[in-house]
This record gives sequence, structure tokens and C-alpha cells, in this order.
Amino acid sequence: MIETAMRQAVGVSADARGASSPNPPVGAVILDADGLVVGVGRTQPPGGPHAEVMALREAGDAALGGTAVVTLEPCNHTGRTGPCAHALIDAGVAAVHYGVADPNPSAAGGAQTLRAAGVEVSGGVLETEVRRGPLRGWLRRQESGRPYVTVKIAATVDGRIAAADGTSQWITGAAAREHAHAQRAAVDAIIVGTGTALADDPSLTARRADGSLYPHQPTRVVMGWRAVGATARLRDGTSPFVQVRSHDPHEVLAMLPDALAVIVEGGPAIVGAFLAADLADEVHAYLAPTILGHGAAAVTDTSVTTLAQAHRFRRESVTELADDLLVTLMRDQN
Amino acid sequence: MIETAMRQAVGVSADARGASSPNPPVGAVILDADGLVVGVGRTQPPGGPHAEVMALREAGDAALGGTAVVTLEPCNHTGRTGPCAHALIDAGVAAVHYGVADPNPSAAGGAQTLRAAGVEVSGGVLETEVRRGPLRGWLRRQESGRPYVTVKIAATVDGRIAAADGTSQWITGAAAREHAHAQRAAVDAIIVGTGTALADDPSLTARRADGSLYPHQPTRVVMGWRAVGATARLRDGTSPFVQVRSHDPHEVLAMLPDALAVIVEGGPAIVGAFLAADLADEVHAYLAPTILGHGAAAVTDTSVTTLAQAHRFRRESVTELADDLLVTLMRDQN
Ligand SMILES: NC(=O)c1ccc[n+]([C@@H]2O[C@H](COP(=O)([O-])OP(=O)(O)OC[C@H]3O[C@@H](n4cnc5c(N)ncnc54)[C@H](OP(=O)(O)O)[C@@H]3O)[C@@H](O)[C@H]2O)c1
Ligand SMILES: NC(=O)c1ccc[n+]([C@@H]2O[C@H](COP(=O)([O-])OP(=O)(O)OC[C@H]3O[C@@H](n4cnc5c(N)ncnc54)[C@H](OP(=O)(O)O)[C@@H]3O)[C@@H](O)[C@H]2O)c1
Repeated sequence: MIETAMRQAVGVSADARGASSPNPPVGAVILDADGLVVGVGRTQPPGGPHAEVMALREAGDAALGGTAVVTLEPCNHTGRTGPCAHALIDAGVAAVHYGVADPNPSAAGGAQTLRAAGVEVSGGVLETEVRRGPLRGWLRRQESGRPYVTVKIAATVDGRIAAADGTSQWITGAAAREHAHAQRAAVDAIIVGTGTALADDPSLTARRADGSLYPHQPTRVVMGWRAVGATARLRDGTSPFVQVRSHDPHEVLAMLPDALAVIVEGGPAIVGAFLAADLADEVHAYLAPTILGHGAAAVTDTSVTTLAQAHRFRRESVTELADDLLVTLMRDQN
Repeated sequence: MIETAMRQAVGVSADARGASSPNPPVGAVILDADGLVVGVGRTQPPGGPHAEVMALREAGDAALGGTAVVTLEPCNHTGRTGPCAHALIDAGVAAVHYGVADPNPSAAGGAQTLRAAGVEVSGGVLETEVRRGPLRGWLRRQESGRPYVTVKIAATVDGRIAAADGTSQWITGAAAREHAHAQRAAVDAIIVGTGTALADDPSLTARRADGSLYPHQPTRVVMGWRAVGATARLRDGTSPFVQVRSHDPHEVLAMLPDALAVIVEGGPAIVGAFLAADLADEVHAYLAPTILGHGAAAVTDTSVTTLAQAHRFRRESVTELADDLLVTLMRDQN
């Protein structure tokens, strides 16, 4: 029952990704005394209520004597919102189960406060699963002081992203592009090189199949020295645009102190630079069932010279997206 | 019941691939009058009995009044073995169901002979499935006068087959290599370029994980002008070795008149040449969860210059082989 509720809390939190930053995208589920779900909530945008408060609001009196299942240890500090531990105590919940303990010293202590108030508390529920879920960006930020980096490539099965004459739209099909747009809607920033910005004049917005914008839009980041023209789509105001005049991925990430998760969308040299800097937590390889045999490679400039240095990942999943495949690879430690 | 038996017949025929050439690798299942499986058989090596005769031998008297389910229409001609249609009539089977009609005028007519003898006959059982099964090589030979061509690549997810310094063993892991060896054991020939022959001194035999040889070994074919040394492993006598001094894939296939199925194992220019000549019926892409970003590409020299000319396939399957993936692509018409 607790694990089912935890999976629901993880699912609920997915929609908070990006929108909640710099706060963690937390999910909460309130069960009443009989174990029925009476409230769910996710972290609201900065300044808004946290997940527990949202879930308690929905539960109302039914929370009394019930159980709260939360992806992250409830916070104990009074930031822009009151501490969640107190809200849970005030609502009279009898038990709180969380997935991951808060590594942040200023917020931690929620479990202790709850216990001191006589609430039954347990942590570590489905911890591995919860860590790999929507919280991973925030956890990466806490642990490494940088956002979770997903590197995206969209290539033929022989690793090409453009034909010999430069034609590159579209290698992958509509289903793959839709999937990639949904990923954009869940992160804080999209990073491309000046080469891509100048060659394609991309908008880098997160759009649904019908062309409408997702509610959350990532910041659009271009790295490199060449100027991006005043009429570039990136400057259309849909979401912030930042150019970082550097070739160093670390410097680019340093310009995004509030970002919990970013997607590096290329081109090949930019992907290579993030790999060479050991900054790729995850790789999304969208592979079309086509072979080119000529044209630009998906990845260059990784500084790898011999096979033993190859960047090795753990395969997380393979998803069929109409004609294309999405192969998701993860850093081994994740 | 008939369809279940047909699937079994297809399965049984898999082990005849390669060994039966130039005869089709047929599978047969005999059901007794109650519908129980009483005999199975597959085509034996040239000069040996056909599938129906093998299955009838196992069935013995139980075939009387029973049903024969055969992947290919029983033959009607007396070659090195007697016609299967007569064997089925002599055994007293009441019904014969086959998957694919024999397109070969000298063998066809089996259905007619059976009907004339009062046997109930139907064709086209699971025809699409049967055509895509072990018979596909023989059907390709009947329809196009050439073997079924599978092109194999073993690459990183960014399409590289060697690091910048040339190191290339091993890109994929043991499970992928075992799978590739089992594929070799099912075809008539393996084709590589002189570049691969000279660089790697490969044996190109079909070996099990323990190093032992599969009973059927493909002919080893090298295409290109440079001489293959007298001490090359390819000349070790394990199976025939042929060098075709040509860069034209059609000429190479013409040297293999009895071959029903071949695997093109590279390198990149050879794979490209078969694609450019529109000879690839199937692509096996073994993809490692690694990124190199430098080094040789899996495929070159395809003559493709613009995206619209990309060689496009239909994804047939995705198989997880330990850390690696096998993506199987097929020519759209298959
Ligand atoms: N299919 C896909 O997944 C995909 C994705 C993106 C792009 N593309 C295609 O890729 C092509 C663009 O490729 P590209 O290689 O020109 O573009 P790029 O990788 O986007 O940009 C390369 C440029 O970025 C700057 N840069 C910043 N950091 C760098 C670093 N660490 N190392 C090297 N350069 C760095 C340099 O320009 P400065 O001199 O300005 O500093 C460099 O010339 C376009 O045709 C686009 O369609 C395909
Ligand atoms: N991972 C894999 O899937 C895989 C598979 C195979 C090879 N490899 C690697 O690939 C490397 C060898 O690559 P490679 O490019 O040198 O070898 P290759 O493709 O095996 O051979 C190229 C040579 O074949 C001859 N040739 C025959 N027909 C040709 C045609 N239509 N077009 C062009 N050349 C033709 C030419 O030599 P002549 O002058 O002699 O005619 C050419 O130089 C090795 O390091 C090997 O390990 C990897």
C-alpha cells in the first residue's frame, strides 16, 4: 500500500519538473485512516505551496489519523512557505513515509520534528526508484552543485545526423520529435552550440503536436563565440535566451545556478564537449531505421582516442516511437 | 491446430538453414487422426531426405488418416530424392496444409498431385510468417536469382566501429558476439573486404561460446584486389575460402550460385557497397551502450548525398543482448 502510494507520488511529481525549480519537484499522496487515497499534490512554482500542503488541502479532514507518502523528506525550515513537517502535524496525520532523506542541512530535520510530535516516520521507501525519478535533477544539484545533464542525439542507425549535402530535417519522425518536446517541457534549459543556432535558426521551445506551447518553457542557451542575430527565433521572448561566450561546459552550467536539469541538444561538438567533461548523466539516442553512410556524425570532439576510453553507459530503457527507437543510457552510478 | 503446427514446422526448419542449401530449409509436422504431433522433420543436407520424408519416418503408421503441415508446398519432381507428394500419398495422410506455394516450375504441382490422389490440400497457411522465416533465403533466390543478404554492423550508439587509434576489439560484448556467431551458422557465406581480412586476420567461422565449431560452417568470402596471405586464418580449411577480385557486390554474389543467404560483415565500405547496390534485405545493427565520438564510421560509401536518398528500412525487432542491443531492420517489401 505504501509502495503503491509512493509510485503514485513519483508519478504526480513528474509534472512539477522544470516548473518547481530551484525547488525539488516533490510528489505527495495522503491516505486516510482506511488507506484510501484522499489527496495528491506536487510542488508548485517558487513561492507556491509544497507538495505536502497541496495534498493536505485536497484531503481536508480526511487526513486526520491518515498517512502521508512523500518522495522527499518533508522540509523543516520556513522559507517562502511554512515548513511541511508542521503542516503534516497540524493536519493530524499519524504516519509519514518518504523516499529520500533531505541532504540539505537547512531543510533537513523534518523527520525528527515529526517524530518528536508523535508521528510514525519511515524513510527510504523505494529509494532507488525515487532517486531515479523527477527528484534526480535536484539531487544532482545538491550532491554535485550542477544540474542533471541529458545529452540528446537524433541520428540514423549508423550515427549520422545530416546527409553529405547538409540536409538534416528530419532524421527522426513525428513521434520522436513529440517525445523530445515533452522532455524539453520538463527541464530548466536547452543547450546548443552556435553552429546549430546559426545553421537551423531553431526556436528550442517545448511544443505539443498541435504546435501549442507547453506551460513550462526551458531557458534557451547557446554556447560559443559567434553572435546570434537579432532576428533569431531564440530571441522571440517565448522564454529566456542566454548566450554563453565559452567553449567550456562547466562555465555554461555555472551560468544556470537555479537549473536542476538541462538537455544538451547538440550539435556534435557540443555533445562531445559535455561527454569529454564527464558531465553527461543520461543519453537519449533517438535512432531512425535509416542508413546514410555519409554526412555529419552525431558526436565529435570527445577526446577519446582508444577503445578503452569510450564513454560507457548503462542501458536504462528502449522505447519504440513509431518508426524510431529511443535508447536511454545512464551514467553507471545513477 | 494447423497454425500451431505450422509455427512448429517453421521452428523445426531453422536448424536446416545453411545445411540444406541449395535446397530450401523446409519444416514438416505430421499430426495423427486425433491431431496429435507424431512426427517432425526438416530438410537434410543435399542428397538426404526432405522434411516431409523425415517427419513421415518418425510418424510411422500414425500418419495414416493424419495431417501433414509443411512450410513449403511438397515437391512433385524426382530429383536426388523421390517426390514428397508421393511419399505423403503412400503414407496415407488425409490432409496436407502448406505455407508457401512452390514458385519453381520443375517442383511445383505437388498440391495438384495430392488432390488428384484424394488428399485434402490447402496452401497459404500463415504465409507471411512462413515467408519471413527460414525459407526467405530460398524464396529470394527463386524470385531474384540471388541470396538473401543480411548486412551486419557492430557499433557504438554513435555509429563508430573503431576508436581513433584503430582499436576495435571489442565494441560489443560476449552475448552479442555469440548471437552473431549463431547467425553465421545459419547462412551459406560470410562476406568481408580485404581491409578487414588484412587488418584483423579473422577466422570468420561460426563458433559457440566454448570455442567449438557449429556443425554448419559458411563459406568465407573476401572481396577486393589485395592478396590474402598464405598463412591467413581464412585459409585454415575449416570451411571453403573464396576471394573475389572485384568491388562489385553483384559479381561477388554471382560467385555463390548455391547460396540462399549470406551475411556481409564489413568493413564500412563493403556494407556501403551492398547498400548502394540495393542488395541489403536485412540489417543487423548490434549497438553497444558506448559513445566514441572519434574513429571509423560503421558505414561509408553508400552513394547517398541527400537525406531523401537515405536507405530506409522497417524495424523488425529489438533484442537486448546483455549490455548491447540488436536492432533488426528489414527491406520494406519483406
Ligand atoms: N540531429 C541532431 O541531434 C542534431 C542536433 C543539433 C544539431 N544538429 C545539426 O548539427 C549541425 C550543426 O553542427 P555544428 O557542429 O556546426 O554545430 P554545434 O555543435 O551546434 O556548434 C559548434 C560551434 O559551437 C561553438 N562551440 C561552443 N562550445 C564548443 C566546444 N566545446 N567545442 C567546439 N565548439 C564549440 C563553436 O563556435 P564558435 O566559434 O561560435 O564558438 C563551434 O563552431 C546543424 O546542421 C544541425 O542541424 C543535429
Ligand atoms: N565492428 C564491425 O562491425 C566491423 C566489421 C568489419 C570490420 N571492422 C573493422 O573495419 C576495419 C577495416 O575497414 P576497411 O574499411 O579497411 O575494410 P573493408 O571494408 O573490409 O575493406 C575495404 C577494402 O575492400 C576492398 N573493396 C572491395 N570492394 C570494395 C568496394 N565496393 N568499395 C571499396 N572497397 C572495396 C578495397 O581493397 P582492395 O584495394 O584490396 O580492393 C578496400 O580498401 C577493421 O579495423 C575492422 O576491425 C569492423
